Amino acid sequence: MTDNTYTPPAVWQWNPGNGGKFANINRPTAGATHEQALPTGEHALQLYSLATPNGQKVTILLEELLEAGVADAEYDAWLANILEGDQFSSGFVAANPNSKIPALMDHSTNPPQRVFESGSILMYLAEKFDRFVPTTAAGRTECFNWLFWQMGSAPFLGGGFGHFYAYAPEKYEYPINRFTMEVKRQLDVLDQHLATNQWICGDDYSIADMAIWPWYGGLVLGRLYNAAEFLDVSSYTHVVRWAKAMDARPAVKRGVRVNKIWGDDAPHMAERHSAADFDQSDD
Amino acid sequence: MTDNTYTPPAVWQWNPGNGGKFANINRPTAGATHEQALPTGEHALQLYSLATPNGQKVTILLEELLEAGVADAEYDAWLANILEGDQFSSGFVAANPNSKIPALMDHSTNPPQRVFESGSILMYLAEKFDRFVPTTAAGRTECFNWLFWQMGSAPFLGGGFGHFYAYAPEKYEYPINRFTMEVKRQLDVLDQHLATNQWICGDDYSIADMAIWPWYGGLVLGRLYNAAEFLDVSSYTHVVRWAKAMDARPAVKRGVRVNKIWGDDAPHMAERHSAADFDQSDD
Repeated sequence: MTDNTYTPPAVWQWNPGNGGKFANINRPTAGATHEQALPTGEHALQLYSLATPNGQKVTILLEELLEAGVADAEYDAWLANILEGDQFSSGFVAANPNSKIPALMDHSTNPPQRVFESGSILMYLAEKFDRFVPTTAAGRTECFNWLFWQMGSAPFLGGGFGHFYAYAPEKYEYPINRFTMEVKRQLDVLDQHLATNQWICGDDYSIADMAIWPWYGGLVLGRLYNAAEFLDVSSYTHVVRWAKAMDARPAVKRGVRVNKIWGDDAPHMAERHSAADFDQSDD
Repeated sequence: MTDNTYTPPAVWQWNPGNGGKFANINRPTAGATHEQALPTGEHALQLYSLATPNGQKVTILLEELLEAGVADAEYDAWLANILEGDQFSSGFVAANPNSKIPALMDHSTNPPQRVFESGSILMYLAEKFDRFVPTTAAGRTECFNWLFWQMGSAPFLGGGFGHFYAYAPEKYEYPINRFTMEVKRQLDVLDQHLATNQWICGDDYSIADMAIWPWYGGLVLGRLYNAAEFLDVSSYTHVVRWAKAMDARPAVKRGVRVNKIWGDDAPHMAERHSAADFDQSDD
């Protein structure tokens, strides 16, 4: 028994505080905390997001659609600053009752369509514009296998490994070991798969790549949690090859900058309303 | 600082052991550990699974399809005993490189189609038979919003809360508090949503219900982790109403029994090859 072992009470009670970095945005209840409508711009697609890995998935897809000439994919990206509680406004909760970024409103329908969960948004936009999902039945199924794999796997990376390795108030050995083992297993799943596949779904660059890259690509490129050495990411050579190939795409370079308000690797870009905004930040 | 706080090494090293219940099936690498082909029965759909919540999602859908008269949904369900390492056979890894249950092979195509990740299997079967996804564009989008919500949320319930509350070798206070808060928030998301919706996607019973029920329905019905009192599940009255309604469905009653090899609430049923098997276990 260690000091950290305890006997749980019969009924759990919330004790705010001591939740590590970002603790102030976590709570045990759902719903809106304040009345505030969402802003709306001129395009049909209105995105409310932040440049975390889950946010980047969607902005990468939107920029890839525009790069491919799909003019109707023009969008307004509004900052949802989760550190300021934007995700708990009545407007945001109506768009996403789960109060997580990203959330999308499509005003091309009446009433406007809400789309939440990054995987659901990727699927929605890919089907709306008929791009970035393989066209064969077999290719489509394999693409969604991996899209769902990302959705079920990344919580162990972000909510598990990342939290306990980088954000928790102390370094707890047991959770770090547990989640490190799982993340390394996931990296090995990808590495073995990418050893014989150019992209996640074979020859076709797809929304599965766009879903997986911000998390696992970010990890092997040393951009998440300062954990590259700890996880020995250079040993996953096929993941590194794939991550660098995607990192070189112009649409990816743009997508990762949208709704980004930290770091000094590129100008900040709190909002994005047209292609010209990429030349005009810092805002 | 507690005894449990430590300084992570520069490069993580695997130290097998002390991972709590189920530690023997966790490892930091992927791929097959032994050559073993998957068994194949007479039906087109060959399922390799276990009656955990993720497994139950798929057997519930298959039984609902059969209940609805979709004869082509007949299936063989083979036991993939994850405690015995079945998920690391060469056959299983070919069906699911992630080595998790459930995995589906559809032999109606040539070559047979692999489908992995429970959410992907639900989507595949619902689209194959054109059932249990709302037919309107808005209804379909909302259904997939919640299906993806389940995929991204349940790891905090199963891999987070369940592990640290029920399976870890010691009761660690910080992780238990972290994951309990998130699970209660998720239950409240569902409770507020179900306050004004009969089913997850409104009037239509769908694969979103089937995905969410084995986890969150199981929790409020007191069937997971012996945590009903700890989580005060009876306070989520709308989730309880919905969970009981689903629990009463004949197809659900059958679905939860398939590939179940523990508990004494119903006869065991390691495999399922026809409707008659429900009358003939214990096997």
